[in-house]
Amino acid sequence: MTTCTVTFEPHGTEVDVPRGTLISDAASKAGLDLNMPCGGQGRCGRCAVIAEAGDFERRSSARLSPEAMEEGYVLACQTVVEGDLIVSVPPQEKIERRLPTAQRTKKIEAPLGYDPSRDQTIQKYFVDIDPPSLKDNTDDLARLRRALQAQHGIDARKLHVGVHVLRKIAFALREGDWKATVVLETGTWLDPDGPPRLIDVVPGDATVSSWGVAVDIGTTSNVVYLVDLLSGSVVDTASDYNGQIARGEDVISRIIYASKGDGLSELQSLVVGTINGLLGQLAERNGLSTNDIYKMAVSGNSTMIHLFLGLPPESIRLEPYVTTTNQPPPVLAQDVNLDINPLATVDCLPGVGSYVGADISAGVASSGMCNLKELSLFLDIGTNGEIVLGDCDWLISCACSAGPAFEGSGVGDGMRATAGAIEEVWIDEQTLEASYRVIADEAPRGICGSGLISLLAEMFITGVMDKGGNLNLGLDTSRLREGDHGPEYVVAWAGETATPQDIVINKVDIDNLLRAKAAVYAGFSVLARSVGVDLSTVGRILIAGAFGQYLDVENAIQIGLLPDMPRERFKFLGNTSILGAYMALINRESRDSIAELAQRMTYLELSADNTFHDEWISAMFLPHTHIEDFPSVMELLKEK
Amino acid sequence: MTTCTVTFEPHGTEVDVPRGTLISDAASKAGLDLNMPCGGQGRCGRCAVIAEAGDFERRSSARLSPEAMEEGYVLACQTVVEGDLIVSVPPQEKIERRLPTAQRTKKIEAPLGYDPSRDQTIQKYFVDIDPPSLKDNTDDLARLRRALQAQHGIDARKLHVGVHVLRKIAFALREGDWKATVVLETGTWLDPDGPPRLIDVVPGDATVSSWGVAVDIGTTSNVVYLVDLLSGSVVDTASDYNGQIARGEDVISRIIYASKGDGLSELQSLVVGTINGLLGQLAERNGLSTNDIYKMAVSGNSTMIHLFLGLPPESIRLEPYVTTTNQPPPVLAQDVNLDINPLATVDCLPGVGSYVGADISAGVASSGMCNLKELSLFLDIGTNGEIVLGDCDWLISCACSAGPAFEGSGVGDGMRATAGAIEEVWIDEQTLEASYRVIADEAPRGICGSGLISLLAEMFITGVMDKGGNLNLGLDTSRLREGDHGPEYVVAWAGETATPQDIVINKVDIDNLLRAKAAVYAGFSVLARSVGVDLSTVGRILIAGAFGQYLDVENAIQIGLLPDMPRERFKFLGNTSILGAYMALINRESRDSIAELAQRMTYLELSADNTFHDEWISAMFLPHTHIEDFPSVMELLKEK
Repeated sequence: MTTCTVTFEPHGTEVDVPRGTLISDAASKAGLDLNMPCGGQGRCGRCAVIAEAGDFERRSSARLSPEAMEEGYVLACQTVVEGDLIVSVPPQEKIERRLPTAQRTKKIEAPLGYDPSRDQTIQKYFVDIDPPSLKDNTDDLARLRRALQAQHGIDARKLHVGVHVLRKIAFALREGDWKATVVLETGTWLDPDGPPRLIDVVPGDATVSSWGVAVDIGTTSNVVYLVDLLSGSVVDTASDYNGQIARGEDVISRIIYASKGDGLSELQSLVVGTINGLLGQLAERNGLSTNDIYKMAVSGNSTMIHLFLGLPPESIRLEPYVTTTNQPPPVLAQDVNLDINPLATVDCLPGVGSYVGADISAGVASSGMCNLKELSLFLDIGTNGEIVLGDCDWLISCACSAGPAFEGSGVGDGMRATAGAIEEVWIDEQTLEASYRVIADEAPRGICGSGLISLLAEMFITGVMDKGGNLNLGLDTSRLREGDHGPEYVVAWAGETATPQDIVINKVDIDNLLRAKAAVYAGFSVLARSVGVDLSTVGRILIAGAFGQYLDVENAIQIGLLPDMPRERFKFLGNTSILGAYMALINRESRDSIAELAQRMTYLELSADNTFHDEWISAMFLPHTHIEDFPSVMELLKEK
Repeated sequence: MTTCTVTFEPHGTEVDVPRGTLISDAASKAGLDLNMPCGGQGRCGRCAVIAEAGDFERRSSARLSPEAMEEGYVLACQTVVEGDLIVSVPPQEKIERRLPTAQRTKKIEAPLGYDPSRDQTIQKYFVDIDPPSLKDNTDDLARLRRALQAQHGIDARKLHVGVHVLRKIAFALREGDWKATVVLETGTWLDPDGPPRLIDVVPGDATVSSWGVAVDIGTTSNVVYLVDLLSGSVVDTASDYNGQIARGEDVISRIIYASKGDGLSELQSLVVGTINGLLGQLAERNGLSTNDIYKMAVSGNSTMIHLFLGLPPESIRLEPYVTTTNQPPPVLAQDVNLDINPLATVDCLPGVGSYVGADISAGVASSGMCNLKELSLFLDIGTNGEIVLGDCDWLISCACSAGPAFEGSGVGDGMRATAGAIEEVWIDEQTLEASYRVIADEAPRGICGSGLISLLAEMFITGVMDKGGNLNLGLDTSRLREGDHGPEYVVAWAGETATPQDIVINKVDIDNLLRAKAAVYAGFSVLARSVGVDLSTVGRILIAGAFGQYLDVENAIQIGLLPDMPRERFKFLGNTSILGAYMALINRESRDSIAELAQRMTYLELSADNTFHDEWISAMFLPHTHIEDFPSVMELLKEK
């Protein structure tokens, strides 16, 4: 086997790989995180790098222009090393490492009436043990059991004891001069009446604090809440991009990545690495050891939960779309390499199915819609749109594949909602000139999801674009022009941007966005029809998720993403997934009710529903084929 | 920090170590196993090596003669490297790697009436599962639960599922086309009525075999029985020296080693390494994968069990001599790095206390003495002598520190019972010439325990030595002479031996042996007196352990190690520890009865008994101060 040396510029990082290795794998080996939104399928063109000198072979050059290829651009995920090679990595292709702006730190107070002794499965007990003597040389563990029984009335005969804590007992008891704090888990959801489990024994009295964490594993961002289990309050929060992003931006790309070689264990390590990083930050900021964290509740979509636990996710994307389990059993932190107490319980919340995961059960539970008589519609819009309709008596859910357009992918100048992204656009009715707002007030580099929705709405209302999404090249503005991919509208001129190019939107982009918004609208239309409900009777429209937080309801209605209803019925809930995880962490009844809710939530498989396609086609227009369903938009168009 | 190169001859192995490193640590780093019976305390003198050239510093040279020191001998465990150094390792100081001769492979048939469905905690179930469809896309685990319930009547709602098996389910079900074998553990001793635990799911029908292993972790030898759990028979056995031997020959040396640096985890890895090696041999010979082994029952003394589980053993040797636990909870194979199925239960049998461990509970159980009305005395003689007296109504135990003399340590020319060891000696009454038998018929290199007992008895009966253990230098034989350590008797001349020296026994050796035999005799004397029993009423004397197998009863009575009783009362049981582990492995009732037996066995702490010292002093004579208790020996002496 011939070994080749690949040198990555500008830093000159060298790595030796066997001939035939993909440049992307060589980069990974060299510790470089290349941006691969499509997960290395050669479809997005985002991993383009420049082969400066040496031997290589292109397997595919999809999305590369002839000019780019002449300049030496190759797709890292589609090009194999054939000899020593020098590769130059353009700066914009490296993953940005910035805190997701959508996550803001806020204090969350415990629910009224929180009682840790009743609500919490993690309990700490201080014990004062008789030291052994020649006359009473019972072993350490038996003494501990005896003290738990005598001093706290706990039947510890069947106590489950893991090896890790067994190894500490002798030290802990002697170090604390036979005074110690025992950490037990009692009455878990899996076995509420089962024997207690011994998690830790620490010297002295450590009952003054007790720590747990709630975690939301988003496909894009991971959030951790540090929770004081004694008071029930969130004392700090931290968030970061999911470390898996460089291996694919959406769940499908991640599933494909997981199915190749060691992809699954790599993705498992990456997300645990991200969470461990956040745990480390929280522990340091709050003066505790991660070892003092005895419980974790985890929410996320089914693919994220599978990857987190290291479960193979392949069957999620293959008909008939089944998971290994929708109700993962509790696991130990040591089994998934989390940096908290090794014997801490890691409780992944239950989901409904492959595309309605724990994030939605958690979200519905934390929204409270499952307790109301009034009918609610719950929406979580991202790459997939998950929709739940129902009340305290029934709940029905579905998932529609919106595609990554709202996440900034699948749109030429699309990008994630980070610094440099255009997040809102206004078009002057007279001049058809665009003005915009950019996240962090930087020169713009692209347009994020909320910016795209705003742009679509403005183009439609001002007549730049017709209801079919066609740009009107007959209008008198240099911003409308024929581009490489057909007609396009210039949002920002090269002189204003951080890149040397204009930022534009073209017909291809518009079609992708229309498909996405149509999928969401068709989703809740089919859902409502399937249970014989008229959408206008829905009392609350609950919009969850980071994307929802920045959505402008007017814009969203104008393009027909959301139904045209009285504006006061719309509520923006933020990250409901982590709120559900937090509820489950601090209250065993809440945990039970999420399980019960996930069990009773019906799942409608849209791909098996024969009305979905028609609804989708009808929703491809602006705002909709049936414009009568959008009276406020009709009114607005009439005014113009 | 200066780095020095140490070269080990004769193989020229080089290793770089910081200045100040012990030669023994350098040897360990170089992958050489030096013999360190005392665990590196500088007491036994067995790790002597020759410093050929270079700089070093002796911290101690105990047990080295001035001549040896002049020849360059240093104690590896007491000499630090001060510069580049060439060290020559004499061949006899390397650990011999031979199968313990005491372990013979034999087939063991299952007990009559063995019924795996009733007696066994490991159960395999074949399930034929409906494949998922769009109309029924329940997850894999729920389908598995449903099949267990419908096809085998198992309530699997609370099924405990570890991450490791969860990761396999999707693959196993699809690979076997939705036909699979489920391995469950049900009704363990800790929680007999608890929910079942899912250990494995394998494609297709794998119910035709089911494997378990019984393990005895001796301080010297480790034995593994491979057991067919369906028939209950032992199908193969394997044994090897405990890999910890090079880190100390007796439990005290091992405890001291464990308390230094990473000693504990090193000892844990060493013994698990030995067991994994044996498991690999058994799997290969019998055409199975070690992954197919779903259960392990382990016996051994309390120190060995602590080291195996990685529990700190320090408190075992410090007053008041307590363990972390005498009844270890079941652990998972993955928690102790055993090469069997990672979720297999590893069940360490219960012991009574620090010096009466699981090997004794297991031994007493497998001897059957706990079920008899007749009074029995159970003896396991090794470095420690463990003694149990009792019947079906009561059991009392004690442990006496015999020291390592019977294991060949603490005696100048002592050695373990391996090839080259003198195992029996005869002295001619007239000429006082010695003849002997050597294990494996090689030229002798030393004397093992049974040989020493035989030698003591012969010397006493022939008058070479008096009842106080003093050699009679006045006799007319060149074999009796004044040596470096006082009077000595030559057992084998240099010309006959494998070494250039005579093999001798001297006063120091004899005193060590007398102390050892006196400790054992005093032990059961005190034990019997403590419960008001006359030793002569004991109906059976059960001698367990590898050493017992080679003990000559006549010799042992002649020196007063065993009481002078009708010979037919003595039974040699062999390795009762592994038999107890085997019983526990195949029968849940046997497991429960061992736990019950360990609970009800009283432990008498000899160091807290004020009559022990007097009994010990009385027993220091040959055969005993009270010779009237040894009528057959009196008779023999009268004859001579």
